[in-house]
Amino acid sequence: MYTETSREQVEGLLLKAEQAIQQLKKRSIADRAALMDAIAAKIEGLGRELIATAMEESHLPEARLVGEKARTIFQWRSYADHIRNGICFEARIDTAIPDKTPPKPDLRKIKVGLGPVVVFGASNFPFAFSTAGGDTASALAAGCSVIVKAHPGHPKTSTLMAQAIAEAIQEEGWHEGVFSHVYGHSNESGAYLVQHPLVKSVAFTGSYGGGKALFDLADKRKEPIPVFAEMGSINPIFALPDKLAADPRGLASQYFASLTLGVGQFCTNPGVFIAIKGKDLAVFKAALQNEVASCPPATMLHDGIAKAYHTMSKKVLSQPAVRLLGKADQSATEGQGMALLAEAEAKSILANEHLLEEVFGPFGLIVTCENEDEMLMLARQLKGQLSITIASTDADAAKHTELIGLLQDKCGRLLFNGMPTGVEVCLAMQHGGPFPATTDARFTSVGADAIQRFLRPLSFQNWPDALLPDALKDANPLGIYRTVNNVLTKEAVGSKL
Amino acid sequence: MYTETSREQVEGLLLKAEQAIQQLKKRSIADRAALMDAIAAKIEGLGRELIATAMEESHLPEARLVGEKARTIFQWRSYADHIRNGICFEARIDTAIPDKTPPKPDLRKIKVGLGPVVVFGASNFPFAFSTAGGDTASALAAGCSVIVKAHPGHPKTSTLMAQAIAEAIQEEGWHEGVFSHVYGHSNESGAYLVQHPLVKSVAFTGSYGGGKALFDLADKRKEPIPVFAEMGSINPIFALPDKLAADPRGLASQYFASLTLGVGQFCTNPGVFIAIKGKDLAVFKAALQNEVASCPPATMLHDGIAKAYHTMSKKVLSQPAVRLLGKADQSATEGQGMALLAEAEAKSILANEHLLEEVFGPFGLIVTCENEDEMLMLARQLKGQLSITIASTDADAAKHTELIGLLQDKCGRLLFNGMPTGVEVCLAMQHGGPFPATTDARFTSVGADAIQRFLRPLSFQNWPDALLPDALKDANPLGIYRTVNNVLTKEAVGSKL
Repeated sequence: MYTETSREQVEGLLLKAEQAIQQLKKRSIADRAALMDAIAAKIEGLGRELIATAMEESHLPEARLVGEKARTIFQWRSYADHIRNGICFEARIDTAIPDKTPPKPDLRKIKVGLGPVVVFGASNFPFAFSTAGGDTASALAAGCSVIVKAHPGHPKTSTLMAQAIAEAIQEEGWHEGVFSHVYGHSNESGAYLVQHPLVKSVAFTGSYGGGKALFDLADKRKEPIPVFAEMGSINPIFALPDKLAADPRGLASQYFASLTLGVGQFCTNPGVFIAIKGKDLAVFKAALQNEVASCPPATMLHDGIAKAYHTMSKKVLSQPAVRLLGKADQSATEGQGMALLAEAEAKSILANEHLLEEVFGPFGLIVTCENEDEMLMLARQLKGQLSITIASTDADAAKHTELIGLLQDKCGRLLFNGMPTGVEVCLAMQHGGPFPATTDARFTSVGADAIQRFLRPLSFQNWPDALLPDALKDANPLGIYRTVNNVLTKEAVGSKL
Repeated sequence: MYTETSREQVEGLLLKAEQAIQQLKKRSIADRAALMDAIAAKIEGLGRELIATAMEESHLPEARLVGEKARTIFQWRSYADHIRNGICFEARIDTAIPDKTPPKPDLRKIKVGLGPVVVFGASNFPFAFSTAGGDTASALAAGCSVIVKAHPGHPKTSTLMAQAIAEAIQEEGWHEGVFSHVYGHSNESGAYLVQHPLVKSVAFTGSYGGGKALFDLADKRKEPIPVFAEMGSINPIFALPDKLAADPRGLASQYFASLTLGVGQFCTNPGVFIAIKGKDLAVFKAALQNEVASCPPATMLHDGIAKAYHTMSKKVLSQPAVRLLGKADQSATEGQGMALLAEAEAKSILANEHLLEEVFGPFGLIVTCENEDEMLMLARQLKGQLSITIASTDADAAKHTELIGLLQDKCGRLLFNGMPTGVEVCLAMQHGGPFPATTDARFTSVGADAIQRFLRPLSFQNWPDALLPDALKDANPLGIYRTVNNVLTKEAVGSKL
């Protein structure tokens, strides 16, 4: 079942994915949404076996996986509701003005799917960002067929999900090419998919190295295609003086909990904490040192990730500018990750930006600034982030408008206090951000707006009403919001406009 | 005035463009729209001098330039109205649910500008797609500062436009870095801009070679940035049998007028006409031959374009598979372009797709098919197009659903009869299309949706109301449409939701 999919099989699956596109174009949005609901129901129906399999393959705890399963089902259902609502297809109608010079034609625009999409899942979310995850749900919602490259870290979990999707596709009477599942361990098998002429877009969640390599391959194609790669980030916290003074111990406890949540294996893990030197920071650090000493090491997703964590954290700690601030009393065994805290001066970071590279795992770097100018300089040097958090009182915020203005340019999500871990699935979520957090800051991979990555506008000029897609017909049979002659309305064309 | 801008000057301009971003973020959308209206008024105020200068530099006739000036002013005003309306910034608010497990935070998302944008104008629209053209207007509407690389084909025209913009910026109290104008003849001067770390996006209108080179440069940057390059296309017309039979002479006359409009120098010029062999096609061709014989050669935009037209058309006509169908009785002098008609069999095109490359100018290739299957095969082989036209009766359309379905995948705009030249500036227009028509089919460069190219979403989590952008404040002080807890509304948050 988990043997490498052969090139011949991959070719066959891609041809089917291409054929399925024509069916996806023909059948209604309501049918597509019904398929998505059916997939959600099938996933819901996967009981103990799914959780047990994922626990075995990912070493994630049961409660976390039960929660992630619910999140995955919610993604399918809420994205289905979103396409039923219809506004995401951005129907625009400009009616003809025959007596204008030159005559204005009738123009009607709607967003349609890009074509077959290849999805690369993440190891750290075996449900919500893998085979049946948000990328698959949003590509299908957009009307694209999907080819998932199964994550080699959890092939059995992926297969259970793929079977659930395939069953729903069959029961709802859809072409089997709507969804395909490919197994392959080598980078070449993924590269082959991204370079294939039938593939029209790519979604990826994972490391910078992996995402950037796929992005480069896609750009070098004869026909370049869009790649949305979410490649993680260090999600810095800028702690402002008033806030730090108010409750340094509370902030330390909150920060440490976020840093070590899920053994630090979140793309929104707050890997860097930036504050100004002084007695409040000293209290904060002492509290952190207490926390880390008693934090037991825990098993990471797989051995490869644990090894990479040890290597990367060791590399950062070997820099003369970085000193170890604290670690657990108990040492880690093979496959485990142990929380580590390090410290560096802002001026060292300013001299060597590589010190701010992501260490995937529970590794926290405390960056100490001499003053607020150094904090500003750090903000200016910062690369693109999924999230940035400002630990701030209202008084702090009033004093630091320049800093807040700068940080807005560097991230997809800006938090006022709280911690960045926990990515709510909702329309107002932005899980994206300037490069290198993602390859295209204009899109998100969480929330129903993720569908937009796989849509493109298509205009129909002077088409007979009967031949237009339902969304664009005069009578508005779908009852959706449309922009008719620059006015947002659900009215039929000509009714009272 | 038109000397090459030095590297030092360019550096200074880019720094100013970067500084201007902070002002663009702070001042209101209403202020930005007012600036755009002021720019429109300044352009309106450019009288005879503008038209005379553009006539001299572009050899375009007065009536066309007067029309293009009006179109340019309309672009500024309609895009200003569009941002005042506010819906394009896609405000989304999901309010907190503190008693959810885990608690749902308050999330509010709004689209913001990407940062400084470099614009490369086109030679064939000295007003509407150049210094003060649609790319500049849409980038500024998005809240981006703009650096225009003046087109070397019409530097005086560009300078007049740049001065008008600069005056409006000064009079409205904006930072001078909001708009900059750079002169440079070499490809290197453009490459330097695209590779500069302060530049965050690029817009280009022109040839495939130019656009693709900039796209590749932008992707190879340390921080890749989005490039929207509109690179033209052959805009094929698929003439279906019933329609061709109904009025072959009328269709020939309509086609020839579109092919030779503006000496064929439009990116939507219908360079290829595809039909099935038979007596109706013979009548169509004979009528075309009549038209072309009496069509006088005309001066093209500049000598370089005229030379490229001669070279490219000669190259296509030298292929054994292509035969000359007709040309003008009168021969062309230097700088002029003469309408040319050629003919090739579908099977030759299917064997050599390079025969379908764009010849910029009044060059029409009639592709003759043995049957409807060959037409389908051509459709399948076709690369991405800005537009595709189906010359069709209702009966034709009913019989050719597969063809119509395929063609939808290959273009940004699909016409039912009529001709593709004439690109209406309105919201329902899609001036884009799959590669190689553009570098990203998900965007348009005509109509107010062009603004989306330069926007990215930014989420604010748990921010105090007073510190949020106006568009996201509870009270909805801008009075714009927002999606609040998945419902589109203009109501204040908490009012009755």
